[in-house]
Amino acid sequence: MTGILRQVRHFIEGVKGFSASGIDAGLRKQPAPDLALIAADRPCAAAGVFTTNLVRAAPVIVDEARLRANPDRIRAILINAAVANACTGEPGLYKAEQSAIWTAQALNCRPEEVLVMSTGVIGVQLPIEKIQSGIPVAVSELRPDGWSSAARAIMTTDTKPKRASYEIDGINVSGIAKGSGMISPNMATMLAVVATDANVPVVLLQRALREAVDRSFNRIVVDGDMSTNDSVVVMASGAGDVTVAENDGTLASLTIGLSAVCMTLARQIVYDGEGATKFISIRVTGARSIEEARQIGRTIASSTLVKTAFYGGDANWGRILAAAGRAGVELNAKKLALWYDDLQLVLDGTPVNYDEARANTIAGQPEITIKLDLGMGLQEATVWTCDLTHEYVDINGHYRT
Amino acid sequence: MTGILRQVRHFIEGVKGFSASGIDAGLRKQPAPDLALIAADRPCAAAGVFTTNLVRAAPVIVDEARLRANPDRIRAILINAAVANACTGEPGLYKAEQSAIWTAQALNCRPEEVLVMSTGVIGVQLPIEKIQSGIPVAVSELRPDGWSSAARAIMTTDTKPKRASYEIDGINVSGIAKGSGMISPNMATMLAVVATDANVPVVLLQRALREAVDRSFNRIVVDGDMSTNDSVVVMASGAGDVTVAENDGTLASLTIGLSAVCMTLARQIVYDGEGATKFISIRVTGARSIEEARQIGRTIASSTLVKTAFYGGDANWGRILAAAGRAGVELNAKKLALWYDDLQLVLDGTPVNYDEARANTIAGQPEITIKLDLGMGLQEATVWTCDLTHEYVDINGHYRT
Repeated sequence: MTGILRQVRHFIEGVKGFSASGIDAGLRKQPAPDLALIAADRPCAAAGVFTTNLVRAAPVIVDEARLRANPDRIRAILINAAVANACTGEPGLYKAEQSAIWTAQALNCRPEEVLVMSTGVIGVQLPIEKIQSGIPVAVSELRPDGWSSAARAIMTTDTKPKRASYEIDGINVSGIAKGSGMISPNMATMLAVVATDANVPVVLLQRALREAVDRSFNRIVVDGDMSTNDSVVVMASGAGDVTVAENDGTLASLTIGLSAVCMTLARQIVYDGEGATKFISIRVTGARSIEEARQIGRTIASSTLVKTAFYGGDANWGRILAAAGRAGVELNAKKLALWYDDLQLVLDGTPVNYDEARANTIAGQPEITIKLDLGMGLQEATVWTCDLTHEYVDINGHYRT
Repeated sequence: MTGILRQVRHFIEGVKGFSASGIDAGLRKQPAPDLALIAADRPCAAAGVFTTNLVRAAPVIVDEARLRANPDRIRAILINAAVANACTGEPGLYKAEQSAIWTAQALNCRPEEVLVMSTGVIGVQLPIEKIQSGIPVAVSELRPDGWSSAARAIMTTDTKPKRASYEIDGINVSGIAKGSGMISPNMATMLAVVATDANVPVVLLQRALREAVDRSFNRIVVDGDMSTNDSVVVMASGAGDVTVAENDGTLASLTIGLSAVCMTLARQIVYDGEGATKFISIRVTGARSIEEARQIGRTIASSTLVKTAFYGGDANWGRILAAAGRAGVELNAKKLALWYDDLQLVLDGTPVNYDEARANTIAGQPEITIKLDLGMGLQEATVWTCDLTHEYVDINGHYRT
């Protein structure tokens, strides 16, 4: 049904119909790019997935309304770093809308066709004059290959820009993301913008995005916190050769392409987790349902005791079982089995006579796969996380100062 | 109805009918007390509250069964540090029961009258010969004023022994506890033993303990993890002057006395939280129910972003609102109000024009009270927690090594 998924070597070569830029609007304390613009040369189908936090930032409120009212005519996304525009009340909403108005004027489209995203400190109003002067510069800098500049402009505590491009069956998909702290499933605290050149009906684009997010951003945990601003938006320009339909394999191809981009971005976020030194895959098998497997995986991935043990390279597996036991999911402690990579540590809930030195060696690796088998069913899920380190404490103890 | 609650100055002066000891049985890597015994000179009424983790240590399984079968004839509690006897299967259960048999022989009572508790590393079998040789020593060291020795023997990463004594209306209540990491509500990962000289029917003792635990240990969060071994047990000797009954005020007095001891012990645990430098009270008001208030308080208290911000003395209040928003409780972001001590920072979900320097000064204090008002109802709850520090990462990165 579906063909070859090809990872595009030169990340973010651009996607037909789109251009991007990233410029310095003076929003940060230090000079650095802080305002990104993604623009399409025609109205696009678009879909979004947003934070489930009940404290929602102004741009999330604005974008959700626009994607409900106007999902087949989105032209651009303006993204600023430094200020989250969250907990900013009516003035915050007004400023988000005003930013869209200025962007629309500069791009010669309607304000309802422009989405906005913000990331940064909560509770501070957008410095709206700086946004106003930045927008014409961002528009003038728009380039088909400007995605890397955009990826750089949206970074906060990220140490690297995050980007990915795939091609499958003639469909091109590219995306950028930011996020390294406040990362939790449902949604990871992050922003991502994904673009495709396929021609996609809105309802199919929504379905494909939901599935891609479920396979990617909803599987990662950095510190278990969830932000007020999490947003993933996909735009489809239709400037390419493929029109996506439900039953001819093209929807499957789009879903695979979107998923590949989102998974790559999600993994980049975990690799770049605040202060992280290790990438940990937690695979929970033998579950009665995927949801239960994921719930246990998330609880393990959120445990500060588990995460500090990996930082110390200590195979303290008891903490993994203890975390599983408090996940709120029925389990039988006597049926648990645990592996670090291919080394089995636990069988029937008790330790086997394993090689302790080897277990600690594995726990000290930069990449580790933990497999916990519940012995209760046939379902499984994998969650990705990182360790909890001194540097995490440094970064988050003084984020605003 | 109830009289004066008097904090006994010299902690753990002893409670009529009980003696205690703490000795070095050689369980730790370094010489130090590691085996504690609390014994009554007659059969006691007893009640317990245990971890809700589904991975339960052997001593928890043993004690729950004994308190079900034999709640009015408990004579002693043997507690060891260093090894948790969790994830140890049938051999672990056998060793827990064998420890009780030896203790009963030395005390000349029945094995079913002895409870056991363990704390330490998960997945390691009890060094049973050391326990066997330690028991007669612990028995020979029993003293009415031996509680402080017992409190010292059960410490793990604790830096201070934890103990409290109160007297109310002729009822004496004393207790010891251990616990500094893996502390979460429902139950905090900790052990506590409380003794009273009142004569109490089992059913009233259970009710009073449940209420005391709800007001104390179930309100504290150090790192959000919950252990396999959490246990609080109370024993009532009846050697004092008061017999507790339901309707004459004595049950209320007992409940207040038990609550005072448990709250003092719980606060000591938070003060001694692994690496903690700050004591943070999170008071959630204006809730529709106590349970919802507590759920939001716990989510804030468990947020690593909130806890690292307090470590850094950074009044990053947006993280508190963001944590509240993901607590799984309905709330209206526009109604939230927030105070640090008596300084109001947020009204109607947005920041007021507060004194930033003063907010940071408060965030840097050793004791801070955060009040979050939801504006939805009349209920409230308070949760206590500590900050997340470099030292926490140190301690837990290398706990076993």
